[in-house]
Amino acid sequence: MKRMLTALAVAGLSLTAMAQQLKSPNGQLNMEFSLDAQGRPTYCLQYKGRDVIKPSHLGLELKQEDPNKAQDFEFKTRADASKLAQKANLTSGFQIAGTQTATFDETWTPVWGEESSIRNHYNELCVSLSQPMNERSINIRFRLYDDGLGFRYEFPEQKNLTYFTLKEERTQFAMAGDHTAWWIPGDYDTQEYETVTSKLSEIRVKMKDAVTQNSSQTPIWEGGVQTALMMKSADGLYINLHEAACIDYSTMHLNYDEKTQTFESWLTPDARGDKGYLQAPCVSPWRTVMVSDKATDILASRLTLNLNEPCKIKDTSWIKPTKYIGVWWDMITNKGTWSYTNDFSTVKLGETDFAHAKPNGTHSANTANVKRYIDFAAEHGFDAVLVEGWNVGWEDWFGHEKDYVFDFVTPYPDFDVKEIHRYAASKGVKMIMHHETSGSARNYERHLDKAYQFMVDNGYPAVKSGYVGNIVPRGEHHYGQWMNNHYQYCIEKAADYRIMVNAHEATRPTGICRTWPNLIGNESARGTEYESFGGNAVDHTTILPFTRLIGGPMDYTPGIFETDCSKMNPGNNSRVRTTIARQLALYVTMYSPLQMAADVPEHYQEHLDAFQFIKDVALDWDKSVYVEAEPGDYITIARKQKGSEKWFVGCTADENGHDADFTLSFLNPGQKYTATIYADAKDASWDKNPKAYTIKQQTVTSKTRIKLHAASGGGFAISIVPIK
Amino acid sequence: MKRMLTALAVAGLSLTAMAQQLKSPNGQLNMEFSLDAQGRPTYCLQYKGRDVIKPSHLGLELKQEDPNKAQDFEFKTRADASKLAQKANLTSGFQIAGTQTATFDETWTPVWGEESSIRNHYNELCVSLSQPMNERSINIRFRLYDDGLGFRYEFPEQKNLTYFTLKEERTQFAMAGDHTAWWIPGDYDTQEYETVTSKLSEIRVKMKDAVTQNSSQTPIWEGGVQTALMMKSADGLYINLHEAACIDYSTMHLNYDEKTQTFESWLTPDARGDKGYLQAPCVSPWRTVMVSDKATDILASRLTLNLNEPCKIKDTSWIKPTKYIGVWWDMITNKGTWSYTNDFSTVKLGETDFAHAKPNGTHSANTANVKRYIDFAAEHGFDAVLVEGWNVGWEDWFGHEKDYVFDFVTPYPDFDVKEIHRYAASKGVKMIMHHETSGSARNYERHLDKAYQFMVDNGYPAVKSGYVGNIVPRGEHHYGQWMNNHYQYCIEKAADYRIMVNAHEATRPTGICRTWPNLIGNESARGTEYESFGGNAVDHTTILPFTRLIGGPMDYTPGIFETDCSKMNPGNNSRVRTTIARQLALYVTMYSPLQMAADVPEHYQEHLDAFQFIKDVALDWDKSVYVEAEPGDYITIARKQKGSEKWFVGCTADENGHDADFTLSFLNPGQKYTATIYADAKDASWDKNPKAYTIKQQTVTSKTRIKLHAASGGGFAISIVPIK
Repeated sequence: MKRMLTALAVAGLSLTAMAQQLKSPNGQLNMEFSLDAQGRPTYCLQYKGRDVIKPSHLGLELKQEDPNKAQDFEFKTRADASKLAQKANLTSGFQIAGTQTATFDETWTPVWGEESSIRNHYNELCVSLSQPMNERSINIRFRLYDDGLGFRYEFPEQKNLTYFTLKEERTQFAMAGDHTAWWIPGDYDTQEYETVTSKLSEIRVKMKDAVTQNSSQTPIWEGGVQTALMMKSADGLYINLHEAACIDYSTMHLNYDEKTQTFESWLTPDARGDKGYLQAPCVSPWRTVMVSDKATDILASRLTLNLNEPCKIKDTSWIKPTKYIGVWWDMITNKGTWSYTNDFSTVKLGETDFAHAKPNGTHSANTANVKRYIDFAAEHGFDAVLVEGWNVGWEDWFGHEKDYVFDFVTPYPDFDVKEIHRYAASKGVKMIMHHETSGSARNYERHLDKAYQFMVDNGYPAVKSGYVGNIVPRGEHHYGQWMNNHYQYCIEKAADYRIMVNAHEATRPTGICRTWPNLIGNESARGTEYESFGGNAVDHTTILPFTRLIGGPMDYTPGIFETDCSKMNPGNNSRVRTTIARQLALYVTMYSPLQMAADVPEHYQEHLDAFQFIKDVALDWDKSVYVEAEPGDYITIARKQKGSEKWFVGCTADENGHDADFTLSFLNPGQKYTATIYADAKDASWDKNPKAYTIKQQTVTSKTRIKLHAASGGGFAISIVPIK
Repeated sequence: MKRMLTALAVAGLSLTAMAQQLKSPNGQLNMEFSLDAQGRPTYCLQYKGRDVIKPSHLGLELKQEDPNKAQDFEFKTRADASKLAQKANLTSGFQIAGTQTATFDETWTPVWGEESSIRNHYNELCVSLSQPMNERSINIRFRLYDDGLGFRYEFPEQKNLTYFTLKEERTQFAMAGDHTAWWIPGDYDTQEYETVTSKLSEIRVKMKDAVTQNSSQTPIWEGGVQTALMMKSADGLYINLHEAACIDYSTMHLNYDEKTQTFESWLTPDARGDKGYLQAPCVSPWRTVMVSDKATDILASRLTLNLNEPCKIKDTSWIKPTKYIGVWWDMITNKGTWSYTNDFSTVKLGETDFAHAKPNGTHSANTANVKRYIDFAAEHGFDAVLVEGWNVGWEDWFGHEKDYVFDFVTPYPDFDVKEIHRYAASKGVKMIMHHETSGSARNYERHLDKAYQFMVDNGYPAVKSGYVGNIVPRGEHHYGQWMNNHYQYCIEKAADYRIMVNAHEATRPTGICRTWPNLIGNESARGTEYESFGGNAVDHTTILPFTRLIGGPMDYTPGIFETDCSKMNPGNNSRVRTTIARQLALYVTMYSPLQMAADVPEHYQEHLDAFQFIKDVALDWDKSVYVEAEPGDYITIARKQKGSEKWFVGCTADENGHDADFTLSFLNPGQKYTATIYADAKDASWDKNPKAYTIKQQTVTSKTRIKLHAASGGGFAISIVPIK
């Protein structure tokens, strides 16, 4: 690690009028900080001289203490109500007490990732602000990278600001134009919306239609959108707003005011409507602004990871990228069921007698079926098998805010944990545990130690956890501080048990996987499951890498070969909006150290030639090259397998298809490779002919030019293996 | 066990107009149930022909589903809003579908108690009610004892009533007159109010003054009072309203409407304002009405225990009545401190460095001091020593709704857990653990297994837990279903570790100690600590047995010999409003299997003759005789030690004192005993001369008449030992 720290200025109180400037290492980004006449912290950001963030205010509004409940008797009179209001102000009346600048440049090694070493290079400005009227101080720390800005609030230990409650964070992002945005509705409980592509000025108008029904949802309405928010300006700037290191803080939304063309932070409330409880000394998450005139730079940015703390797990040898199959698509398409019996209209764990219940005949997680999956995994070199619906309670788990909904250790009578453990181990296959919490967080925490120990005892090194439904404690939300604290608790406890976590329906990631690399996946967006619930938009996978994936890997569960869901279940008319070739590409374009082949074995048997790419594709990388990209249109990425000279390329295209044309310049000069190209056939398209693919082999070098056509909803995948 | 079950009537639908009658085994109580013209369940109760409960409605109001969120699409139109309202109705439109009556008579053996065998004898009426408009049914089960009525709602398994949310329980208790009542304000978070003695018609008027400041409080205001509510009618009926077996349900308050002279149930809400979440099949707690024309019958009633389920702990050999001293009064009087250092204005566990902090010199829970207490306990035959303030975090634990406030396993540097364990064991003394949760229930549950294991490992068979401060999850209340579920979780988990629980600031008990006898104590009222915070009303201990103790034993922590708190701490001007003689009496009148000698050893050294009674008095009983009592005036109780022929008598009197005059008729006829009488001296009084007591011995028999004067705030205690 190389660290250079230069204190440029530690000044007194006379700096108020002066603007503080900060430049990115390459000089292309310029951030300016100042206080306005009311003492409000203000910043703006330029990229190559063009406005990215126009002057915007920073600050926080604290919850005003109820005068009738004020513990401090001095505030118990009406005359002092204004003093209570004043104490709630953390937005104005500031003075600059000092500033510090520094330069930081280090290269670190992630446990897993899109590249095997990551450069963390920024210039930093930390502004110390005093607020004389309340005798308080805060710091705002800015880090300016070549690819964007991160800043956060810091609350030093001090007498007059120790415990405080946020009414709202008042961080503004004033836009420089009516950009095109790729957004989903702000919501405290779901991220599983389709992306809307619109002008910023259209957000409010389009909100009503954008909010579609979900199993648990609390839309913000107004101009509320979620991050990571991707935008493109008329003059070709790509701008992304998100957050990093959201720890013990509630998840941020952005509320757009079209009159001022400004976003303002909008935190997720708790059951009382409060937005956060802080105890100084502490810090907020980083608020991030990525910017470039190339879309691929957004994909290549490591800003979110870099703003997180280094790894806190000492021995990471047990954290392993994992390719898996699972007993899952079966139930997602409503062919099989998670439940074991139809005997019970309601279930009480510990009272309901499953042992003597009549099996419904559709329970997919039975020992014989699971063994079939284990056989398939072993035959095709998969690391692991996920099984959902193995534990009692699925007859009555959803929609009732049920407290004691699962116990995470009691299998159904037809799921033989010990035998499956023995069988899987004998085949060299690991099992992936499934913990559906149904949102009942207290219940999950009560069972967590035993549930994790059960995993250790039975050969499950990873868990897919789920939070489908409203949160219990009732009134809390999926993305509030309470639940963010819960997810973090699970991650850290799982690390104690050497367990990897893949949390679904949990809040969107903010790069915490750098600090806790056992967080190998999240869902936090519409995944492939929605392809069986009516379908994802055709351009969905050309957007996610610019939005959801900015915070960390997604367990998107690609690999569906049979796109007609009625083949699984005659009653399911949904279509997976993709060609088979594009399904292969997603293993490259949707970066994740955890990758599922989500279809059922029978469908892979019908296309073993295409399936070969899923078997071959790597999970961990030395290097990633973002060949070409345009949000909502197409993405092409090439990645070099970690510790190998093999490369894998993937391209996903929207409904208009895409003509890719690029040179394999990233290959070693002079080296010859065999490229196996999995492409859409000429007449392929997601809706009319999704299974039409071609597989060709050719010898390539770093000079080879690749021209390939991706069909509507199509794509291509290439594996490139050096010739010895 | 003797059980007689007689089905007297299982009838059809034509019973609506007929009143169902139920008589107590001795025929003195008569309960009548009927449906009124609107199909509202209605009951009334008479005692010896006098009205106790006039016709009162029963039922529950369910939370109306939000039409916009109704999962069932049939309700999504405005026209169906009335259907949603109808579905919320569980108060009217009922028909009697059938009735069943039964007689039950058994005698059971409590693990500990006021008597060694308890008769549970009642007549039962279970009314099955159907509600045709919603195609639902509920049962109301009445059990009529010679000493009162219990009834509850039962929700059988059925299609149209499985998961439901209570808006409010609508159980009415129509009073037959403007009784005198001993009440404390209804409040979701504290029970630590002084009792108000007033007419029912004065409740609302006196409410404002009755609500005094507390560390966490959410008064109901209006006409809201807590149970157990004690009343006396103008014609001399003693009536007590409470509840039994409050499990997975929120604690009930009563709201008085003086216009109709009727109480109605008022449950404790959750963070959303909802009153309860139920899943059929399930039952409500029992609502109880005790009644007699003798006040002592209220004290002698076992109705609350009888309405609870039998013991669920198989091996109860480890549950032992316990007499203890503790490092406690020291801090309560502000002489010593729970905290170890003054170095920190704020504490973060795991970050704050206690090892290098400067001791404040006032930390009472230090090894040397604790050893002094262990020595004293061993010398005087106490079972155990409680130590508060032993674990890190007390510098910054209160008033901030702090989440991670204690970890329950990390001692201060001056508290040597291992050495204290060794030392106490060598002296045959057990330790009592202290777990202050500060109301942070999630944090406590997260640490519970480790905390209990720590107790097992270090010789602590019992824990005093505390819930001082607002509840976390924020918005929940001490007496809501969420927390009641938490307290129960702790009791049951403690049983797994063979740990006895004494929960302070937890909800008032409802006889659950029958089912879980490891719940050996609760606070749930103003305890002796308030004697150091300004004092308890002089009549306080003449009321508590009629109110708080109806639900179960209280860890009142009597035994203060130095009533002038300034002797502990010159800055503390509080007076313990008692004579020493009365402090002795409380070990008999305030029944508990857990009894503390709460004063500091130095004060006992000054009065070793009086202290002898505390050393001698038993904790567990074969028999209890309620000699005389009048709520708010005096109580005299005699108890026979379990497995011994020793008797102990106690009398507590209000500010007017009391002239007791009774015969020891409960003694074995013909047997001679030595009675040691600890009485107020002639000139004693709580305020002027509290330490003036006399100790006399005399030989007594069952014919001996005792005439003793209890001073103002005084009392007496007698130990009676057979002469061999």
